[in-house]
Amino acid sequence: MKTKFLDFVEISKRRSNSLVCVGLDVDPLKIPKHLQLQKDGVWIFLREIIEATSDVVSSYKLNLAFFEALGDDYLKIVRKTLLAIPDNIVTIADGKRGDIGNTSEKYAKVLFEDLNFTAATVNPYMGEDSVEPFLRDETRGVFLLALTSNKGAKNFQFLKVGKRKLYEEVLHQTKNWGKKNLGFVIGATKASELKNIRKIIPNAPLLIPGIGAQGGSVKEVVENGLTKKGTLFINSSRGILYSSSGIDFAEAARKAAIDLKTEINQHKKY
Amino acid sequence: MKTKFLDFVEISKRRSNSLVCVGLDVDPLKIPKHLQLQKDGVWIFLREIIEATSDVVSSYKLNLAFFEALGDDYLKIVRKTLLAIPDNIVTIADGKRGDIGNTSEKYAKVLFEDLNFTAATVNPYMGEDSVEPFLRDETRGVFLLALTSNKGAKNFQFLKVGKRKLYEEVLHQTKNWGKKNLGFVIGATKASELKNIRKIIPNAPLLIPGIGAQGGSVKEVVENGLTKKGTLFINSSRGILYSSSGIDFAEAARKAAIDLKTEINQHKKY
Repeated sequence: MKTKFLDFVEISKRRSNSLVCVGLDVDPLKIPKHLQLQKDGVWIFLREIIEATSDVVSSYKLNLAFFEALGDDYLKIVRKTLLAIPDNIVTIADGKRGDIGNTSEKYAKVLFEDLNFTAATVNPYMGEDSVEPFLRDETRGVFLLALTSNKGAKNFQFLKVGKRKLYEEVLHQTKNWGKKNLGFVIGATKASELKNIRKIIPNAPLLIPGIGAQGGSVKEVVENGLTKKGTLFINSSRGILYSSSGIDFAEAARKAAIDLKTEINQHKKY
Repeated sequence: MKTKFLDFVEISKRRSNSLVCVGLDVDPLKIPKHLQLQKDGVWIFLREIIEATSDVVSSYKLNLAFFEALGDDYLKIVRKTLLAIPDNIVTIADGKRGDIGNTSEKYAKVLFEDLNFTAATVNPYMGEDSVEPFLRDETRGVFLLALTSNKGAKNFQFLKVGKRKLYEEVLHQTKNWGKKNLGFVIGATKASELKNIRKIIPNAPLLIPGIGAQGGSVKEVVENGLTKKGTLFINSSRGILYSSSGIDFAEAARKAAIDLKTEINQHKKY
């Protein structure tokens, strides 16, 4: 893949006319019972979910914690999963990494060079030299945590730093980092902040977790967050994966993905 | 292991009368040439480093990025490394994890239950519910990032939040989280801040990276950071591991660890 990150994002979005990102938070205890009994049940589950949804979504987000929890061979499943995803779809390594420069370099190498993810989520707390290694290759992208969907976001992200909230300061300080390959994570549960956020970063792609189980509103996210050049990756994990616990799980996941795509597209102005 | 975290920390420290933490940032291209040529060279290197140093250090820190970069079987090497470390020594999983609650739970499960690490480094940016799963088991500890050793620490950690710097706010807000199993990461390159930090958290264990290659002063760290109840894990990675590139690497690592232990103990008041 030699396409620049934002061009790849555009290809991936147009391909399916969809802003849906499927979060692959795979949990062996939540997959359908008939698959829990099979040796390769988790892998079959992932493959069928991908086959059933890949034409109606723009991207897949692999939650690395859930994969790591599968056991020592988890990277084999990560690799098989990435191979099962068609070439022109954005794949996001959701591990919220970030460390001193020589260590972030290793994480970036594993995720981008060895595993071939398109993008990774990164934590801003350690500053520029901890993020830079993830931005070095202009064909790969970063989604930097700005405002997260969880309750704990209130502990620090909303603190006032001068006249700004901390998450706004993160956006202001970082918005010109990288080679037009920097996006941000903004939780859907904080959708009311999106208008304000788009004034600071009108064009950056945003990864939006938090609709569904966490309670964010699709309408508000799309109306406040989608701009002419600034696309959205609206993530749904449990709402798509575990839509049915029966043998019709893949069909049900497809239907949930289409429903979400349709709901999003109803509110789109761009 | 049913010992509470702080008791275990005390046992580990007394055992060797040492505050040295060896950072296992293992890099296949930096180990001695004769080991680079061997199939299990990386593992032999780690085993010999541990054998040569375990009686003169208090702890080992495994930089997860460096292990992940070893290839798909890296967890086998992590497991073998942990088994090679004597039972009564603190082992720190340095991955700077942190995510929404259900995801942090998975990370904590892998690191503490599956791999049996004593402690893990965690990033505070996502707030309390992202850290809590790592603190749930009182036999395990967290080192929460407060003030890091890298240049990028200046981007956000020193921002003024009211009258406090952001990292001070992190210390104030979090200091009573957990079950007396919360410590902090404070970079040795910021040792001048340690006096002030100890006013906020007099008793918490601190993990101190940044001496050696990164330039922090041992004297300043010990004099400002060590308190009667608040111990230090003073980490050295490259300075110990790659002390010699010859066949005497293990002896050289031992000598470097003893030199660091001695230098630290010269400045100890407790």
